[in-house]
Amino acid sequence: MNKIYFDNAATTPIDTAVLQAMIPYMENHYGNPSSIHSFGRTTRSAIEEARKSIATCLNVSPGEIFFTSGGTEADNMAIRCSVHDFKIKHAITSRIEHHAVLHTLEELDKRGNIQLHFVKIDEQGNVDLTHLEELLKFTNERTLVSLMHANNEIGTLLPLKQVGDICAKYNALFHSDTVQTMAHYAFDLQAINVHFVVGAAHKFHGPKGVGFIYIKNDARITPYITGGSQERNMRGGTENLYGIVGIAKALSIANAHLTEHQQHIQALKQHFIKELQSNFTDVQFNGNTNPHQSLYTVLNVSFAPNPNGEMLLFSLDIAGIAASGGSACTSGSNQGSHVLRGIGAAADRPSVRFSFSKMNTIEEVDYTIAKLKEVLG
Amino acid sequence: MNKIYFDNAATTPIDTAVLQAMIPYMENHYGNPSSIHSFGRTTRSAIEEARKSIATCLNVSPGEIFFTSGGTEADNMAIRCSVHDFKIKHAITSRIEHHAVLHTLEELDKRGNIQLHFVKIDEQGNVDLTHLEELLKFTNERTLVSLMHANNEIGTLLPLKQVGDICAKYNALFHSDTVQTMAHYAFDLQAINVHFVVGAAHKFHGPKGVGFIYIKNDARITPYITGGSQERNMRGGTENLYGIVGIAKALSIANAHLTEHQQHIQALKQHFIKELQSNFTDVQFNGNTNPHQSLYTVLNVSFAPNPNGEMLLFSLDIAGIAASGGSACTSGSNQGSHVLRGIGAAADRPSVRFSFSKMNTIEEVDYTIAKLKEVLG
Repeated sequence: MNKIYFDNAATTPIDTAVLQAMIPYMENHYGNPSSIHSFGRTTRSAIEEARKSIATCLNVSPGEIFFTSGGTEADNMAIRCSVHDFKIKHAITSRIEHHAVLHTLEELDKRGNIQLHFVKIDEQGNVDLTHLEELLKFTNERTLVSLMHANNEIGTLLPLKQVGDICAKYNALFHSDTVQTMAHYAFDLQAINVHFVVGAAHKFHGPKGVGFIYIKNDARITPYITGGSQERNMRGGTENLYGIVGIAKALSIANAHLTEHQQHIQALKQHFIKELQSNFTDVQFNGNTNPHQSLYTVLNVSFAPNPNGEMLLFSLDIAGIAASGGSACTSGSNQGSHVLRGIGAAADRPSVRFSFSKMNTIEEVDYTIAKLKEVLG
Repeated sequence: MNKIYFDNAATTPIDTAVLQAMIPYMENHYGNPSSIHSFGRTTRSAIEEARKSIATCLNVSPGEIFFTSGGTEADNMAIRCSVHDFKIKHAITSRIEHHAVLHTLEELDKRGNIQLHFVKIDEQGNVDLTHLEELLKFTNERTLVSLMHANNEIGTLLPLKQVGDICAKYNALFHSDTVQTMAHYAFDLQAINVHFVVGAAHKFHGPKGVGFIYIKNDARITPYITGGSQERNMRGGTENLYGIVGIAKALSIANAHLTEHQQHIQALKQHFIKELQSNFTDVQFNGNTNPHQSLYTVLNVSFAPNPNGEMLLFSLDIAGIAASGGSACTSGSNQGSHVLRGIGAAADRPSVRFSFSKMNTIEEVDYTIAKLKEVLG
């Protein structure tokens, strides 16, 4: 069997159709989109088409979409600029956010810009909405709430609409790191009280190095990266032309096949869960696994303590199976998963995150189960 | 004749060899460079090779090179993070810097973080070094000096080594926006007292959306974009893998053919100057045109006042010739060129920036001269 890639929450392969859309802008149409001559007008038009396409997918105005270098920059922009511009003194988040959010908020707290509050989560990573309301009642000043739509390591979903309604009730700004759910669920942002959501193309078969931020019209912020008048003065720097063409194409493909992909991947995940349960004693799952409350692309499995547990990911890698212990973004830090710590997962149980895409198959799941049995005995 | 592209200071076409180097990372090697499995190790290795290659070109340590989304982000990072981390209270710049520098410093000044001082420049855009020293003497606190290596609109070069020595004398931090000169001159950063220089791939036949910052080891700053532990904890966000492969390849190609390209382009520019002078009365040049004090890729021409002057760029565009009135980055703002204003250029004289690359030819210059004669009569 070829290599198996079960680390799609870290990054996904570029869809062939996305690459095909990008190539003409790498080979032929190279004008700076800000140039007023014909070379520039061609590429400007490609960028504005991309913006319109994304806006249509999310049911927002094209004027509310701004391109960035990825999800992390977009999260930084939403958090740092809203804190500055709206003179935010209090922010609420959870201890299991992606580091793009957590480290950013912690830095602002450490610098004395904000006071950071952590909403309670349960052992599945579900946010305690009653506690969220209590925290929001705590101050009369405008508060920033930053809670991710789906946790990247354990897949637990936030009830986005419900949280948006709570934020609206207390006039809080609401930012949601939607990097893991963008292009995996249909978003109707007219129907949700959220001020900032973000996307990163490489999480949905688009290119690395490009993302976007949606900024609700009534929460307009100032730029984080200042310079030229690109992105209607909201983000300096010559646009990542091919990246922008690629992200729009990737989102549009995903949106056109949403149900089909979701059914395919959900079936893989449920099959994986069933096979794990019938082949391993004392298998557990980190995070919420209720299909309606869990991101269908992510399955975080915890096995019984095992002498081969520590080498599990390494053994899978040798067998040609790519999975991960948590977020790739933190793998350089060697500190273990703050998410698993955050939900109180037992440290002696080996945990693996398997994350799927439309390109995975049932056969790959079965092969992985067989290999897991070999390793864990 | 095919279309003529004389706007290479705005952006350049991707070199075929650069694109060829990028394609395998778009088609086959897609692992997240932070992943520890084989997919990730392959791409991690490509990124570290790219870093080493760039470090070798600049004669610095690979640990001093950090990848960004472009020159503008790199300029923001150098300025904003050094001001914060080194508690800088005074910064010195010029009025003809790129907006990535100027708007960033102006914002910091407006917010009360720094007091911004403008060094005098002459009518060619040359920095008054005596005045620079006077400004540096003004305070005992550590000062940030930010002066671009070559002006992007008029090509005037800064004596980088000399300015570095002055900064060193007063213990100032020195940032130079080298976006227009990177890959156009040989850099030996061991020999220059500069703390931060930057590059943007798309200015030297690499891809858009990727750049780098050199941060001298003894001026280590904290990240501007916080998140995961990418770039050794210096820049969060999944790396723009293909972009990074592309920027290293583009710089390495440029460095290998530096003299050859310089001679070719310098010859085009001198031919252009000569032809302009013999075909037009009262032609002038904005900026320093001494070949040793002027970026060889940029020629900013000013014609005698003419009724067709206002439509000059448009007329050239109709004739298939792409040139510009100034920086593409500011074209969205419709405020004219702050650089030409900064050097006191006469507002009634139509000015055009022609900027060249290794791909341009003498025939294209001659064709352009002919078209200019038609338009300006």
